[in-house]
Amino acid sequence: MTTETGTSQAPRPVGVAVLGHGTVGAEVVRIIRDDAADLEARIGAPLELRGVAVRTVSEDRGIPVELLTTDAEGLIARDDVDIVVEVIGGIDLPRKLVRTALDAGKSVVTANKALLAEYTGELAEAAEAKHVDLYFEAAVAGAIPVIRPLTQSLAGDRVNRVIGIVNGTTNYILSAMDETGADYAEALAEAGRLGYAEADPTADVEGFDAASKAAILASIAFHTRVTAADVYREGISKITAADLTSARALNCTVKLLAICERITTEDGKDKVSARVYPALVPREHPLASVSGAFNAVVVEAEASGRLMFYGQGAGGAPTASAVMGDLVMAARNRVQGGRGPRESKYADLEIAPMSEIMTRYYVNLQVADRAGVLSAVAAEFAKRGVSISAVRQEGAGNGARLVVLTHRATDEALSSTVAALDELESVTAVTSVLRLEGSAE
Amino acid sequence: MTTETGTSQAPRPVGVAVLGHGTVGAEVVRIIRDDAADLEARIGAPLELRGVAVRTVSEDRGIPVELLTTDAEGLIARDDVDIVVEVIGGIDLPRKLVRTALDAGKSVVTANKALLAEYTGELAEAAEAKHVDLYFEAAVAGAIPVIRPLTQSLAGDRVNRVIGIVNGTTNYILSAMDETGADYAEALAEAGRLGYAEADPTADVEGFDAASKAAILASIAFHTRVTAADVYREGISKITAADLTSARALNCTVKLLAICERITTEDGKDKVSARVYPALVPREHPLASVSGAFNAVVVEAEASGRLMFYGQGAGGAPTASAVMGDLVMAARNRVQGGRGPRESKYADLEIAPMSEIMTRYYVNLQVADRAGVLSAVAAEFAKRGVSISAVRQEGAGNGARLVVLTHRATDEALSSTVAALDELESVTAVTSVLRLEGSAE
Repeated sequence: MTTETGTSQAPRPVGVAVLGHGTVGAEVVRIIRDDAADLEARIGAPLELRGVAVRTVSEDRGIPVELLTTDAEGLIARDDVDIVVEVIGGIDLPRKLVRTALDAGKSVVTANKALLAEYTGELAEAAEAKHVDLYFEAAVAGAIPVIRPLTQSLAGDRVNRVIGIVNGTTNYILSAMDETGADYAEALAEAGRLGYAEADPTADVEGFDAASKAAILASIAFHTRVTAADVYREGISKITAADLTSARALNCTVKLLAICERITTEDGKDKVSARVYPALVPREHPLASVSGAFNAVVVEAEASGRLMFYGQGAGGAPTASAVMGDLVMAARNRVQGGRGPRESKYADLEIAPMSEIMTRYYVNLQVADRAGVLSAVAAEFAKRGVSISAVRQEGAGNGARLVVLTHRATDEALSSTVAALDELESVTAVTSVLRLEGSAE
Repeated sequence: MTTETGTSQAPRPVGVAVLGHGTVGAEVVRIIRDDAADLEARIGAPLELRGVAVRTVSEDRGIPVELLTTDAEGLIARDDVDIVVEVIGGIDLPRKLVRTALDAGKSVVTANKALLAEYTGELAEAAEAKHVDLYFEAAVAGAIPVIRPLTQSLAGDRVNRVIGIVNGTTNYILSAMDETGADYAEALAEAGRLGYAEADPTADVEGFDAASKAAILASIAFHTRVTAADVYREGISKITAADLTSARALNCTVKLLAICERITTEDGKDKVSARVYPALVPREHPLASVSGAFNAVVVEAEASGRLMFYGQGAGGAPTASAVMGDLVMAARNRVQGGRGPRESKYADLEIAPMSEIMTRYYVNLQVADRAGVLSAVAAEFAKRGVSISAVRQEGAGNGARLVVLTHRATDEALSSTVAALDELESVTAVTSVLRLEGSAE
């Protein structure tokens, strides 16, 4: 397998099959064809496109029609295909095709977070069995290198926390609500018009996409298998313009965060928490200024301190940049011998249940405007050991509201406090409960 | 060499020699000893510290004295040393030791930017001859992964520009001048008191350190050998409190930038420009908010768009984090077979002379306060084709000053304009000339 460049015989070309020709696939194909000379110099052998698997072969795709095929399995099976790039999306079909490729001893590059968040274990084992590469930098935060920094650059450090804005659609919506005062429905509609939200935005706005990415990040950061089902998840569809107004009053904004954390329980045991929810973030936190469709990931490790990675988290070209980086690495490994990092799951930490997670909270209550309300409300927090950091009353009469900010408390204590507040006669409604992340305290 | 983990025989340990026991070396040694179990799991074999080369063996280093030696060559030569970590600093001695290690078939991890900026070519060839790794993530921007993203994540993309704040000392000084109005000498003294500036700060404040890093970044970004001598360099010691005041008035701050750029000359030829100088940076640019001793690197590539990497660029622990990442990768390669990316210099682009570089300029003039001055000044710019974007007069009488902001012009045209202005009767003095980078135009 080891063919050093510079030896007398020309190195064998590396054959690539691309599965899928959507925005990412088309851009990958374009780069393979347009930048062939650069890619060959970087790999040490020509990178040759063997074919592109599509649902329907048509002449208007801008590539020679003989490169197109509807027979993905047949394309993968070709002897002259060494690496398979999977950019189809979905789960069942790509799972089958990626397995087929790995089982046949082909390296795989995929951008498919939903697939990886469910089946990394199965796929990594298949790759291991055949000693081939499974790369997926593009699955998290598009063009922004986060997988490679976590698996390689920080391989000698101890990661404590990864916190990211990893979904551009929701970040666009929340930024718009913050900047223009729009309500959720308006901002979502605008995101749809601009192409930032899909016709069915559920996967984005309900946090499923971010949860897949959180599962992948938590797995590699903590050397533990974490799947999407292990990730606690809340979306942004219940965030109101009033929440943003209250956030502004607290010098915060609201962001949908993917948080992967190593927590140490009272008995000294390390556990992994992976969770996705909208949270108040102080304006001075580096993630607060990540606006529009941009992504950013903050990594906190013992020796490195806090690192931040920022850039375009989606779109054809940025995602293709990440796919191409992986493709060049997989091809180099074919030419020079060697393999990229494998799945690392030795730590095998337990998943911490949400009830054990401690954060700060913002609670917005509609209350009766009379003496004693604050005392009654404060008593419910105190009873459950939830310490209050600040309280502010807004408005008066029937519209009076109390905004309560707590110190760190468990999800369990806060939830039971909220249930009790809901029963209080002087509380008309618990309007909203949001976590506060990234504050100094 | 390929020993798969999980086979019946225990994998051979990987032996490490650390050269140097300063702040970085001590932290590397601490991590190797304290995190042995994690490192073994990640590498697939135990990582064993064979010895630490120091100038004087003493008992107060916090490590067993039998690990210490003054005989670096002897330590490197040991049969059970597979990887050498060089964190001595300086150029001549580390050059000799790193060469010795590579020639003996040991992989090398170094944090030594000054060495690499001069001798990457020689060292990369030595590594190539013995098929071993030469890793140097820690040489640029401490804990922040930039070498690996450039050589691997962006291996399939086309980098157009790398622009960074890569020296913490100068960034601390310039941030302090911006925030407190201090002059250069005061801010330097404060940086010294806080441990951000060395007793002899020349390498930092005159831009030598940043120039070494620019050479390394330009080499890997543009697949071309660039050495420190190819980097145009200006330091910050002539920046005044008045420059910061003028910058603020233009909604800018002043940063010492390392800029690596691919420029296309009029005849369609690609050249590399690498340069270090203090420049005005608009407040809205992501680098403007990088303050204190932090580092940040912005990478602009064709498909990825703009990426930013941010974190701690110096200090024992952050630098050790980067060294440890490289060490784990080099050790994995020993255990599993394979090698990291080699030097890539195939593009072999010409270095663009500074005279060809186009940027915008800020020119601060002390002028006679009388009619016709502006017209005389403007005429000198116009004669040389330097288009003025904005002019502002500050003060009156003998203290009258003109602040001129230009559109993009070549260094050559601007220099000759400044020389002519200096000759003008109505211009008392050209107080300062700074470039403006990162503006929309």
